[in-house]
Amino acid sequence: MNLEHAEPEGRGGPLIAIGGAEDKLRDRQILRRFVAEAGGANARIVIIPTASQLDDTGDRYARIFHALSADETHVIQIQSREEALDPEAETLEAMEDASGIFISGGNQLRLSTLLGGTPLAAVLFRKHAAGAVVAGTSAGAALLAEHMIAFGQSGPSPSHKMVTLAPGLGLTHDVIIDQHFRQRDRLGRLLMALCYNPRLVGLGVDEDAAAIIDADRIVHVIGNGSVTVVDASQCRWTNADDVVTHGPIGVFGVKLDVLSPGCRYDLATRMAEPSRRMEGKPT
Amino acid sequence: MNLEHAEPEGRGGPLIAIGGAEDKLRDRQILRRFVAEAGGANARIVIIPTASQLDDTGDRYARIFHALSADETHVIQIQSREEALDPEAETLEAMEDASGIFISGGNQLRLSTLLGGTPLAAVLFRKHAAGAVVAGTSAGAALLAEHMIAFGQSGPSPSHKMVTLAPGLGLTHDVIIDQHFRQRDRLGRLLMALCYNPRLVGLGVDEDAAAIIDADRIVHVIGNGSVTVVDASQCRWTNADDVVTHGPIGVFGVKLDVLSPGCRYDLATRMAEPSRRMEGKPT
Repeated sequence: MNLEHAEPEGRGGPLIAIGGAEDKLRDRQILRRFVAEAGGANARIVIIPTASQLDDTGDRYARIFHALSADETHVIQIQSREEALDPEAETLEAMEDASGIFISGGNQLRLSTLLGGTPLAAVLFRKHAAGAVVAGTSAGAALLAEHMIAFGQSGPSPSHKMVTLAPGLGLTHDVIIDQHFRQRDRLGRLLMALCYNPRLVGLGVDEDAAAIIDADRIVHVIGNGSVTVVDASQCRWTNADDVVTHGPIGVFGVKLDVLSPGCRYDLATRMAEPSRRMEGKPT
Repeated sequence: MNLEHAEPEGRGGPLIAIGGAEDKLRDRQILRRFVAEAGGANARIVIIPTASQLDDTGDRYARIFHALSADETHVIQIQSREEALDPEAETLEAMEDASGIFISGGNQLRLSTLLGGTPLAAVLFRKHAAGAVVAGTSAGAALLAEHMIAFGQSGPSPSHKMVTLAPGLGLTHDVIIDQHFRQRDRLGRLLMALCYNPRLVGLGVDEDAAAIIDADRIVHVIGNGSVTVVDASQCRWTNADDVVTHGPIGVFGVKLDVLSPGCRYDLATRMAEPSRRMEGKPT
């Protein structure tokens, strides 16, 4: 059986990395945007609640997406690797037909250990490459990229062994995503992950905020929180490679861009662009 | 500055992942093969001894490659991230001109933290995509893939937190490479890494053995040791996601293929092929 990931053909769909605790009751800006990207009233949405241990996580999102005009939703109930290896025909068909895929919060390692290398993950990968939007909130956001923060400790500055990385879905190779960023004080663990190899860009996504990564590798920020972009590629020194050390790690010359809603960031040039000034507000 | 990795165009060069302690004195089969893949007498070889703390590592390899008929060798002396960010013109030119790149052993985290996201790494990536052979021994082998085992503990069975992953060079997305495999009893840490996301294939390379990954994604084994291929994609259960656990981790249904020299493995189909029977030996 060939479980390889096909190389993307054409333009991939957008990725929506949500920092968790997104508004589900009021204007639901982030979830509304997901439905719009999936085709609005014509959206065919698959919901993957596998990361969560709560029974009604999938149905709750289905009700919200219905309320936001998406008629067709399908909750994929995968609770074991055995089910992911031999999914019901109906499940695979729903994934094959999806225009939008939504991955809930919970434990991201549960997602990667249950879904990694399965036919279901291979179809998801292929659908995204063909243009479907993929959104994840909290654990679901962490899973989107090639390198996923599996777990770690809180705190503003990096220290040894404070972060554990694992392979994620691999829908983007540009970034490492962290979530609940401001609320759980996660700059330190994101810096630690980036020190290991400063090639990647860190995206720290606050609660009720989302980073939308489009096919042109532009990050767009929406919601009611910020996205902190961490670029360590120009850092001139770190002792992160000193594996006999315990405790704090130094790193010089990291660039932070804090993107409020409406701001953009170009992953190719590594330049941030301001939000457009709203009319009628004091200048 | 655009530090992104260009997408490979055309066929990439071979990767040679050496398990460390390769023969440097007798027939030097593995190093000889590297020189041949780089063009033999026409080879233009760049040696990166950055992982090593020994002063003469680079020059020692240069002498061996000369003895194996490669006239043109260049040792890149990068000992800090500052040097990797602003390499001498001569260094960048040598990398641009290389037909073969050899990465020595030492500490693989030193390689990824010093070189990750630098112009030097970007040129290396591009040269490989354009056909140059890239070989790494020990730490240099670990660095080749997208997911690198940064450090970990010995032992035959997986247990929690026994392995730390970091982003590597990303010259292949198919495998996680471990080295000194039999000699340092590393099946447990490789299994642990694969449990995190069973999508990838593990290559455990013994000392004085090498796994050559060609552009068709076929692994060829040479040298005087074996390569253990670990495929966890069909595993039906693991509790690797149970992050509150300490101690042993279970995983059911992992496939092992132990490849002796001459054997091959197809990363696309995940099938091993036997070595051809040598004539004149008892059958």
